[in-house]
Amino acid sequence: MNKWQFSDEFVKAVYDGLVEAGVDYMEIGYLSSESAFSRDEVGPWKFCHNDDLRRVVGDNNTDLKLSAMADIGRIAPEDIPPASESLIDLIRVACYVHQVDKAVALAEHCMDKGYEVAINLMAVSKVNETDLDEAIGDIAKSKVPVFYLVDSFGSLYSEQIQHLARKYKKAMPDKTLGIHAHNNMQLAMSNTITSIIEGCNYLDATILGMGRGAGNCPLEILIAFLKNPKYRLLPILDVLQNYVGPLQKKIDWGYHIPYLITGAMNEHPRSALSWMASDEKDDFVKFMKSMHDYELLE
Amino acid sequence: MNKWQFSDEFVKAVYDGLVEAGVDYMEIGYLSSESAFSRDEVGPWKFCHNDDLRRVVGDNNTDLKLSAMADIGRIAPEDIPPASESLIDLIRVACYVHQVDKAVALAEHCMDKGYEVAINLMAVSKVNETDLDEAIGDIAKSKVPVFYLVDSFGSLYSEQIQHLARKYKKAMPDKTLGIHAHNNMQLAMSNTITSIIEGCNYLDATILGMGRGAGNCPLEILIAFLKNPKYRLLPILDVLQNYVGPLQKKIDWGYHIPYLITGAMNEHPRSALSWMASDEKDDFVKFMKSMHDYELLE
Repeated sequence: MNKWQFSDEFVKAVYDGLVEAGVDYMEIGYLSSESAFSRDEVGPWKFCHNDDLRRVVGDNNTDLKLSAMADIGRIAPEDIPPASESLIDLIRVACYVHQVDKAVALAEHCMDKGYEVAINLMAVSKVNETDLDEAIGDIAKSKVPVFYLVDSFGSLYSEQIQHLARKYKKAMPDKTLGIHAHNNMQLAMSNTITSIIEGCNYLDATILGMGRGAGNCPLEILIAFLKNPKYRLLPILDVLQNYVGPLQKKIDWGYHIPYLITGAMNEHPRSALSWMASDEKDDFVKFMKSMHDYELLE
Repeated sequence: MNKWQFSDEFVKAVYDGLVEAGVDYMEIGYLSSESAFSRDEVGPWKFCHNDDLRRVVGDNNTDLKLSAMADIGRIAPEDIPPASESLIDLIRVACYVHQVDKAVALAEHCMDKGYEVAINLMAVSKVNETDLDEAIGDIAKSKVPVFYLVDSFGSLYSEQIQHLARKYKKAMPDKTLGIHAHNNMQLAMSNTITSIIEGCNYLDATILGMGRGAGNCPLEILIAFLKNPKYRLLPILDVLQNYVGPLQKKIDWGYHIPYLITGAMNEHPRSALSWMASDEKDDFVKFMKSMHDYELLE
């Protein structure tokens, strides 16, 4: 929502807070080819070049690992340096169901270069069961060790998360599962708990749920909930009150009615994002009436 | 949070919206004896006298029933008019575990006067299992037909809600169960879903989660989730954008870090409420350090 234009100071504050809090991984941005985006439009965290990372994390001599997301088609494999020359530890490849072959190829390429890898299969709430089963069958056969349950539209609730987690676990019993939830229906924290119960072990969360649209599972709730002595809440609250909270007042992510409506209708949030950027953003009735098939909720 | 000082216009707008939306009950306020509170401090909805109700709902010739909450010790039984002379349909008696006998007596008194009744047993997350079993055994023996699972501190998650719902159902198989959730850990909607799955049939929700502290289960999410043709979302969005949203900007209920901390620590929100009313409200680190036993989350 800010085109990855975080100041170094902001990123450093979040990094320091996460190190102090005992968080395992910090996803610090995206891996993208320079040709895919213009530096005039997007900040350095859309590329995660080592020089930019080093300015903030030095050699990262901490227990916190760094992660970056890679979108199919926006990063050329040859643009990814060997892991030995990078501060990034984990590369997560995000893909739609029709891109699974490409995602496996890219992820295995990253493994060969020495990275930890994961695949995040997006938008599964729109995918029919047969296509989904085929896709996860392909991922099951790959070397990729970590696979993510992703609720892209924030449209899933506990029973659906449970169903998907059990399906994934059955199809790939040797892989570790992760969860990436969105908060359109205020179910991100709860869906994360459900996936913990179902055995997911990579839990995505952001301070104050920072993320596009309704945002993600709030890290401060997750840590307060887990009561695991490995993690500390106070350093999170420190960066929350000094950095992330003030940013949220400027960039209005989080629970808002247009995101609720796209979530409840199992739709991509793009229409809600445009509405929230318009002068009519507080006219929720008009937004809902502008949605195709809104009678489902009328 | 506003001492029940809602304007007639506000209450009428909510009432009209709920009627249009097909909501079953509107809890319009409390029943209290005049001697228990001063009219100089609290608004008319703390008493729910028929004259005040009639100004807003007329004869209430609609399918929407009206409900009022009664706190033990704050309403003298003789101050409750016969149901035939009242616009209130349902009286909900709220009590702590040591007040169960009084609650049953008051509720049965209300039944004798012709009302529907329910008992809401509060703060059960602090009660030991033996005391809880004894209390629900007493309620099981009563004539009271509806009993509420209440998460007073917003400290419970799905497995605990499931445990309590099953315990209540087993102890009183002939009673209808309800759920009243608080949103301290953003689990109110999810806990409401869990109780639906467990068979609860009275679901408490408020527009934008309006309620003390972190507030309650948001009605607009519940209706969007249920996709039950009995209910309509648009009338809720209308009153939300014109009345409840603007009020929330003045009275800051909802998810805030101090409420998260009391919820995660299973504490009454009173310390968080005072903190949020102070000049230090945005110093969450200081608030957490002010809590006894905060090391549990540190």
